[in-house]
Amino acid sequence: MKNGIGYHNVGDLFDSFMLVKAATKGVASNGKPFLTLVLSDTSGEIEAKLWDATPEDEELFHAEQLVKVMGEINQFRGRSQLKIHSIRQAQPTDGVQVADFIEKAPVDKEELMGRLTEIIFDMKNPNLQRIVRYFVKKYQDELGVYPAATKNHHEYVSGLLYHVVSMLNIAKELKNLYPEINKDLLYAGIILHDLGKMKELSGISAPTYTLEGKLLGHIPMMVEEIGRAAEELQIIGEEVTILQHMVLSHHGKAEWGSPKPPLVREAEILHLIDLIDAKMNMLNRTLAKVKPGEFTERMFAMDNRSFYKPTFDE
Amino acid sequence: MKNGIGYHNVGDLFDSFMLVKAATKGVASNGKPFLTLVLSDTSGEIEAKLWDATPEDEELFHAEQLVKVMGEINQFRGRSQLKIHSIRQAQPTDGVQVADFIEKAPVDKEELMGRLTEIIFDMKNPNLQRIVRYFVKKYQDELGVYPAATKNHHEYVSGLLYHVVSMLNIAKELKNLYPEINKDLLYAGIILHDLGKMKELSGISAPTYTLEGKLLGHIPMMVEEIGRAAEELQIIGEEVTILQHMVLSHHGKAEWGSPKPPLVREAEILHLIDLIDAKMNMLNRTLAKVKPGEFTERMFAMDNRSFYKPTFDE
Amino acid sequence: MKNGIGYHNVGDLFDSFMLVKAATKGVASNGKPFLTLVLSDTSGEIEAKLWDATPEDEELFHAEQLVKVMGEINQFRGRSQLKIHSIRQAQPTDGVQVADFIEKAPVDKEELMGRLTEIIFDMKNPNLQRIVRYFVKKYQDELGVYPAATKNHHEYVSGLLYHVVSMLNIAKELKNLYPEINKDLLYAGIILHDLGKMKELSGISAPTYTLEGKLLGHIPMMVEEIGRAAEELQIIGEEVTILQHMVLSHHGKAEWGSPKPPLVREAEILHLIDLIDAKMNMLNRTLAKVKPGEFTERMFAMDNRSFYKPTFDE
Amino acid sequence: MKNGIGYHNVGDLFDSFMLVKAATKGVASNGKPFLTLVLSDTSGEIEAKLWDATPEDEELFHAEQLVKVMGEINQFRGRSQLKIHSIRQAQPTDGVQVADFIEKAPVDKEELMGRLTEIIFDMKNPNLQRIVRYFVKKYQDELGVYPAATKNHHEYVSGLLYHVVSMLNIAKELKNLYPEINKDLLYAGIILHDLGKMKELSGISAPTYTLEGKLLGHIPMMVEEIGRAAEELQIIGEEVTILQHMVLSHHGKAEWGSPKPPLVREAEILHLIDLIDAKMNMLNRTLAKVKPGEFTERMFAMDNRSFYKPTFDE
Amino acid sequence: MKNGIGYHNVGDLFDSFMLVKAATKGVASNGKPFLTLVLSDTSGEIEAKLWDATPEDEELFHAEQLVKVMGEINQFRGRSQLKIHSIRQAQPTDGVQVADFIEKAPVDKEELMGRLTEIIFDMKNPNLQRIVRYFVKKYQDELGVYPAATKNHHEYVSGLLYHVVSMLNIAKELKNLYPEINKDLLYAGIILHDLGKMKELSGISAPTYTLEGKLLGHIPMMVEEIGRAAEELQIIGEEVTILQHMVLSHHGKAEWGSPKPPLVREAEILHLIDLIDAKMNMLNRTLAKVKPGEFTERMFAMDNRSFYKPTFDE
Amino acid sequence: MKNGIGYHNVGDLFDSFMLVKAATKGVASNGKPFLTLVLSDTSGEIEAKLWDATPEDEELFHAEQLVKVMGEINQFRGRSQLKIHSIRQAQPTDGVQVADFIEKAPVDKEELMGRLTEIIFDMKNPNLQRIVRYFVKKYQDELGVYPAATKNHHEYVSGLLYHVVSMLNIAKELKNLYPEINKDLLYAGIILHDLGKMKELSGISAPTYTLEGKLLGHIPMMVEEIGRAAEELQIIGEEVTILQHMVLSHHGKAEWGSPKPPLVREAEILHLIDLIDAKMNMLNRTLAKVKPGEFTERMFAMDNRSFYKPTFDE
Repeated sequence: MKNGIGYHNVGDLFDSFMLVKAATKGVASNGKPFLTLVLSDTSGEIEAKLWDATPEDEELFHAEQLVKVMGEINQFRGRSQLKIHSIRQAQPTDGVQVADFIEKAPVDKEELMGRLTEIIFDMKNPNLQRIVRYFVKKYQDELGVYPAATKNHHEYVSGLLYHVVSMLNIAKELKNLYPEINKDLLYAGIILHDLGKMKELSGISAPTYTLEGKLLGHIPMMVEEIGRAAEELQIIGEEVTILQHMVLSHHGKAEWGSPKPPLVREAEILHLIDLIDAKMNMLNRTLAKVKPGEFTERMFAMDNRSFYKPTFDE
Repeated sequence: MKNGIGYHNVGDLFDSFMLVKAATKGVASNGKPFLTLVLSDTSGEIEAKLWDATPEDEELFHAEQLVKVMGEINQFRGRSQLKIHSIRQAQPTDGVQVADFIEKAPVDKEELMGRLTEIIFDMKNPNLQRIVRYFVKKYQDELGVYPAATKNHHEYVSGLLYHVVSMLNIAKELKNLYPEINKDLLYAGIILHDLGKMKELSGISAPTYTLEGKLLGHIPMMVEEIGRAAEELQIIGEEVTILQHMVLSHHGKAEWGSPKPPLVREAEILHLIDLIDAKMNMLNRTLAKVKPGEFTERMFAMDNRSFYKPTFDE
Repeated sequence: MKNGIGYHNVGDLFDSFMLVKAATKGVASNGKPFLTLVLSDTSGEIEAKLWDATPEDEELFHAEQLVKVMGEINQFRGRSQLKIHSIRQAQPTDGVQVADFIEKAPVDKEELMGRLTEIIFDMKNPNLQRIVRYFVKKYQDELGVYPAATKNHHEYVSGLLYHVVSMLNIAKELKNLYPEINKDLLYAGIILHDLGKMKELSGISAPTYTLEGKLLGHIPMMVEEIGRAAEELQIIGEEVTILQHMVLSHHGKAEWGSPKPPLVREAEILHLIDLIDAKMNMLNRTLAKVKPGEFTERMFAMDNRSFYKPTFDE
Repeated sequence: MKNGIGYHNVGDLFDSFMLVKAATKGVASNGKPFLTLVLSDTSGEIEAKLWDATPEDEELFHAEQLVKVMGEINQFRGRSQLKIHSIRQAQPTDGVQVADFIEKAPVDKEELMGRLTEIIFDMKNPNLQRIVRYFVKKYQDELGVYPAATKNHHEYVSGLLYHVVSMLNIAKELKNLYPEINKDLLYAGIILHDLGKMKELSGISAPTYTLEGKLLGHIPMMVEEIGRAAEELQIIGEEVTILQHMVLSHHGKAEWGSPKPPLVREAEILHLIDLIDAKMNMLNRTLAKVKPGEFTERMFAMDNRSFYKPTFDE
Repeated sequence: MKNGIGYHNVGDLFDSFMLVKAATKGVASNGKPFLTLVLSDTSGEIEAKLWDATPEDEELFHAEQLVKVMGEINQFRGRSQLKIHSIRQAQPTDGVQVADFIEKAPVDKEELMGRLTEIIFDMKNPNLQRIVRYFVKKYQDELGVYPAATKNHHEYVSGLLYHVVSMLNIAKELKNLYPEINKDLLYAGIILHDLGKMKELSGISAPTYTLEGKLLGHIPMMVEEIGRAAEELQIIGEEVTILQHMVLSHHGKAEWGSPKPPLVREAEILHLIDLIDAKMNMLNRTLAKVKPGEFTERMFAMDNRSFYKPTFDE
Repeated sequence: MKNGIGYHNVGDLFDSFMLVKAATKGVASNGKPFLTLVLSDTSGEIEAKLWDATPEDEELFHAEQLVKVMGEINQFRGRSQLKIHSIRQAQPTDGVQVADFIEKAPVDKEELMGRLTEIIFDMKNPNLQRIVRYFVKKYQDELGVYPAATKNHHEYVSGLLYHVVSMLNIAKELKNLYPEINKDLLYAGIILHDLGKMKELSGISAPTYTLEGKLLGHIPMMVEEIGRAAEELQIIGEEVTILQHMVLSHHGKAEWGSPKPPLVREAEILHLIDLIDAKMNMLNRTLAKVKPGEFTERMFAMDNRSFYKPTFDE
């Protein structure tokens, strides 16, 4: 969708349907109320100001509402901002649907689920396989649709599953190159490492952090869940502790949220695969928005670096 | 017991019963075997070299054996070392017992348990009280005797319970000074905060770290235990999450092992009380070994500082 | 005073007397002058914009003036801001006084002074007692009214004395629990530790930093004062150096302003008591402004954390 | 070679041929000279003391000499040490060769070179391909045999080429998973990234750092070489600067020796692939020396961690 | 030029010619376009807003245009801002020239060049002297006019040469005080240390970073240039490596951009002289703008410190 | 004195008079007592072991005793050690004196004092001059002989004064290059900055830290002394506070012992001059002990770097 908001530049006129992600009331320096809208389509989002907003405007333009908007893209304090010329609610006759405006993983959830099932089917260690199956079943509804995060990487519908499957693909290739890897352990660790996000994040569209998410975080919550699952499945064995360790250590360092660093080979490689897939996801999506010879905007989760897109090809 | 090994100086002769804590075989630069013994009584421990050790010596002088030793205290690379003049196994007729050579908390475990019971009895919030009672019952055998650590502070028999009771005493006084504190929550957090040590450490005398202790640590293990206990007790309510947060955050910072910092008033105060009691325990025991006008040895767990003991009184 | 500005929310109308703490002139994007006022009562403060300000407005609404203001509380860049509907100077007939709008310690300065006198009376070490008495006498006018800081904790009238007395109360309880503490030394350290603030800060209402405060800081200034006092009182003895060390080290670490870390037991405990009282003061006052189930605003001096207020009671 | 020195434990007798890597003279506490020998075979190395060494011993047992040694493995200050019972120079009739005692990459240099040639053949961008060919030709003698480092990872004959080929294999798989990657750029970066080591290290057996290596380091030296090569080949184009950037940034951060962090997608992925291959090489070789259920020795280049080898299989 | 923009205060009227350094279009909250101009003279620069800008305004007021402007200096978010009352393009009849509005070094470039020539003439080591001469010749056009940076210190015409000559003067005096210094090596290092800036920065007026500057930085570029120059001049000898090391290490630490720290006496002293001259340049120019008894604005490149100007004289 | 111990290498025989700096008794692994002696002359010091020491040996060879020693220089754990062949007390007839074995500054104390007096005579600001004179008079006996430190730099007789005079020489040259410097303030700051060392260190030969030195440090002690001196001299004026600030801030950063960083131009330059002179003193003395083409030993106070001495001349 190369004609979405993410592909427009400052100075462009813009005329399209968009989804209101957030609407906040403010008062301008002239004393009149205005609305700050965050408008999105699958290519990105933009802030827009609706000046001199009436009480009716406030009712019409709220979060999760589709709108038809026309305006011009300006720059404000170094960020794009849409100056609204006109705006109206979308009508049934417009034939647009909310689902078309929410970013999704580039692969269907059915295909991702199929790939996940294959991988699990290939596992040979029964303890690991049973624990993994338990969780895939437990979260069968959410797993196909949850995002992997609220921002930065894979922050879209099916993002979590897409991230897991990408990591499994890398893991499979690394197993070929380094046969010492315990494949089942690595696969199980990858599949479970971020499942705690389903308790940490409030939902799929516009997710926020739950109270448990804020006070405990997805890592300790998932460590606890694995312990309980093993008890329920009556699995006793080192696999349980090692799997808990894989989840616990996958952020790599205490200051990044892992009270123990990786102390098992597969835990170390899980951490590295997670890094690669998260970084490639961020880099590819951000570089897609600039032209060869340009630098991207600064990327907060990449140490605030701005990346260059070379002008030559393979 | 001012006449124990901890109160002797370099140059002193020493002639007493001691407990062998560890015995390691080595080969001297002249090619002859020797034994490195760690000998202890309740006042401290010292390394000793038994040169030209025979195979019989190796059998006689092993860990957990009581011995009668005579020797001279020398200095070696800045640490005290006992030069053995003579050594023999203790005999039944000597009338000495292993228990007399292991350091214990300065208060009886019965008295500590009594104080703990009183405190729990005073709690009014039924959810918190029930969870606390569940764990005191579950660990009734170990709780009275476990150490709080393998070294640094409260590393002796009943050290964990003594630490908990000292913290509860501080908490009670702070509640008087700052009535906004939720006393039940603070008490419950103090009682549970280190119970995971009973799974992290292998036992009471000469404890080491278990596999779970090394790969997971006492904090996530205890968070998991609280979750399971609440399920078993069918307690639903914010108390469970907040208690888990109290345990999770009690080291204060991510780099000190708490993936979340304290985000509840009582979690912050729990962290501070833990600091005070651990530091006072270390300082008082270390300062007891030096005379007024002297500096202590460097204390690793106090940022490697060496403390001064003033020469004047109150 | 639950109806002060600190207890209102965005959207509320507000109509009350307030004290102008600061007034700054600006020019709006339409080229017209405006005033940015900081208005306060004992519950907190709020920024307010007076648009299209006339030269008369500038004269009427200056720092330390009481005003009657009516307006609506809006949100601007994530902070509350008062949109002024009307504003006028307070009149003698309004019956309001500046003193009623400045925050004070929750305990009377006479009562605090009484408590301080008792504590000093109990001291037995004559050198420590004489030095402490010297300073209480020297600063008898300021000690009862000075704030402990310009912001963060105890930043109100009598804040310094209130902080000292709270710390003395904690110290007394800790002495009971850890009898090894030299009570007189700890008391003297607590009483003197922050007295340098009376030279570091310019005064009581709206304090700023003096030139000495900026270039030297309250810690070295107080170390110097103790040295001079000892000379004047002809006190010779280790107490002088140790007291200077208590003040010097009370921030705990070089990077926090203490060129030497605590190297005496009572210096370490003084640092910890200071931490507890400062943190409890900040936490209690900030948590008082949110409802159960809410998080506070981010607290800069608490590592920018936002604290949660649980929904359950003791 | 499971019967090499790397597979013996403390207490074992050992009787085999070994290569002297270093020999240093010392004087024992009894005033007699001794030799400290570092003895190695392809499985590892061990320190050995030859007490009461004669001047003849000093002549016989020097670096790069093969010896027949019999002795017992002891522990000294936590490290293994060989107590020599007898030692003699190897004789021609013993039929042993130095080359059999130097560790080599697990794949032949011819096979590695073949794989490298294939990869270069597949490159399409002529500028990148020509620069890469230039260097492979320039270093054709050393490239097949140089180690990648003096210690930690790939520190053996052909280690550099083996590391490069492993990285190319990973790169190829990642290109399949993330087609946005510019394969030629990534390949060229991988092939060149560590070639400066051939100027930084003094040679193949027992390499040390050259003066240039110590004062400049392999990274700036290789950046310079690429610039000169491009001039010689009369290549003008962004490829040259980007390739220099790939080499410059491949350590990832300034504090790790890269004055610029990766600012191009392929530079970031090069850094990550380098990390993975170095870590897997270290982990696999270290874990090969312990049994399931054991922890490895502390690994300095892995943040001093000790890794656990689980007891269960796939 | 004490009457430049750098010497005016908030509230002052200002009426003078200025150079437009940058002009950016924006849209005000009332929907109308405006121009943000950065206006400068040799004493400093100021931001100015031209509200309700017409398309003609946009054409007239662009970068590198001289203008006559009248307005009032206001404060906006803590920074000075010029409120424009009137503005027009400068006319030929106004008799003003762009060169008069660009800050220059306080010493003529001819004089600086003369001093540099003298110093080089005094060098005795032929290898060092030839390399230095090579570069002075190569960059003879740029060397006299380039700035030393885009901001912070010596960021004006001839700034680089002025910085080099100041450093040479300090070096000469230190050689007198510490005769062990190798003067020729230190001189050569000073002259070459920042020459890479001529490739890193795009030009003289309003310089920005080149692609090479962003991806490689001036340090590795200059190291490469020295290597090539030595090759061209057929100089072989340790001088080349040491000179490259001087340039490479002159930022002092890896985290400041030097992959190797100074490892040669003259490299260490070069780093210190660079620090002194950069800091004195910043301090003297910033302090010149405040009166005795005042603090300067915060200086970002001096760890964000604000410096005090004492009220007393020598 | 190129034939001192500092100029000998491992393997050399050594036969000369030396001063015993320290003597410690130990017990060898064969159970016999030995003495560890630290022997010194003006070129350096070396550790020596006297095996099988008799009680008479202990009496003869104590600190501050001159001895005639013959032996061989060996290497032990990477450091030189003297293996004693024979040793005896020096006799009156040997004609050697303790003073000849203590390192001194390379310039006479009378010459240094003369230079200091000149500088003070040149000062024009009466307040600064009077304070400086007060201290030079107060410490007239110690100032000429004290070391500047116990190790690292200027750690010899008259080291403090030599350091001060070197710094004054640099200051004078910098004043010529940067006339904005307030010379009197800088001179006064240099002269006073380290005078607190005379209370921090116990004496001239083999100095240790005093109790005040350990608990307060030379910086706060000197700040206090300046305050008292000003009071005694009845000097009121900003000079006093600024001078105290100069001393307080001269270590540059809080973590290096300065609770306030330099906030006055002359304080910043004082810090830089201190750095230069300390570093040049360490570098010159350490480099004097190696030959061209060699690296020095690691220098702890230079971030543990090992410096290279180039092989070419000016």
